[in-house]
Amino acid sequence: MEVSVLRIGHRFVRDDRITTHVALVSRAFGASTVYMTEVDKSIKESIAKVGNIWGGESDFNIEIVQDWKNVIYSWKKNSGKVIHLTMYGINVDDAISEIWKLTKALVIIGAQKVPREVYTLADYNVAIGNQPHSEIGALSIFLDRVFKGEELKKNFRGAKLRIIPNGKGKRVREASDGDIS
Amino acid sequence: MEVSVLRIGHRFVRDDRITTHVALVSRAFGASTVYMTEVDKSIKESIAKVGNIWGGESDFNIEIVQDWKNVIYSWKKNSGKVIHLTMYGINVDDAISEIWKLTKALVIIGAQKVPREVYTLADYNVAIGNQPHSEIGALSIFLDRVFKGEELKKNFRGAKLRIIPNGKGKRVREASDGDIS
Repeated sequence: MEVSVLRIGHRFVRDDRITTHVALVSRAFGASTVYMTEVDKSIKESIAKVGNIWGGESDFNIEIVQDWKNVIYSWKKNSGKVIHLTMYGINVDDAISEIWKLTKALVIIGAQKVPREVYTLADYNVAIGNQPHSEIGALSIFLDRVFKGEELKKNFRGAKLRIIPNGKGKRVREASDGDIS
Repeated sequence: MEVSVLRIGHRFVRDDRITTHVALVSRAFGASTVYMTEVDKSIKESIAKVGNIWGGESDFNIEIVQDWKNVIYSWKKNSGKVIHLTMYGINVDDAISEIWKLTKALVIIGAQKVPREVYTLADYNVAIGNQPHSEIGALSIFLDRVFKGEELKKNFRGAKLRIIPNGKGKRVREASDGDIS
């Protein structure tokens, strides 16, 4: 299943670090593209730096868009489904078996209040619990549900460094030809 | 299992919104207490406001501490285990069966670089995948693993408002005596 993320309602400067986390989570947990409006271009640079060292550069994109509605319209035109993450939605665990049937999903996450029409434009309004929390937390758990935890062991192609998981400290090695990358 | 969270390395102002998300995620996904150093007091106020409306006020605390090491020492003295979330650790899905055996866990999450000694003070260094991402994302998935998804349907006692999960918009009702609260 191909998953992309649309980040809306970003408030310039104030939300920059939150939006950087949104992009990092999207990349780490298996999304293909993040669409964002009006963000500081340093966010794109940070993510490029991460991809350069830790891999998967060609599998993940950030696209800066002028109009988020156009992203939704063109996604729907291309037979993609739209999933809006909101505390008012259906619990993810009640919706996930439907979502697993999709081949292409656009996940919308907002900062603070989201325009009313997002609720009606979305094919699914899905809640990661019905309590207020964080769009970063919501996106993380959503991607984890979609990819069934396999995203946590995903191989990132073309990495320069790889971590050797360790219970007591940091162990890192240079990536080699023997890696599946 | 009782889980508390220790947030270290918060950089004043710059990290305020990230730390607010840490607190919101901790509350929403079933942690009891968040220990924080040097944060803006508006964070405590935001969380109190959320608890007042959406419930669980008496089940969740934020404690501002002077020295994070003392939190670790006194936690260990009281037979609690310490789990540090880090991209260098053992994959959560390889560690979770051990973690489920614990009765009291303190989860440490850092902002950016974490002092070396955290790795040795921790009983477990656990990775939510071995890629760089977000302490908010890491904490969310960790709590979801610990509480096996049940945290997403948890009842928050004393709520003034409750959401009626809805696929197409917002539905909220006032909490009543019939609620298990």
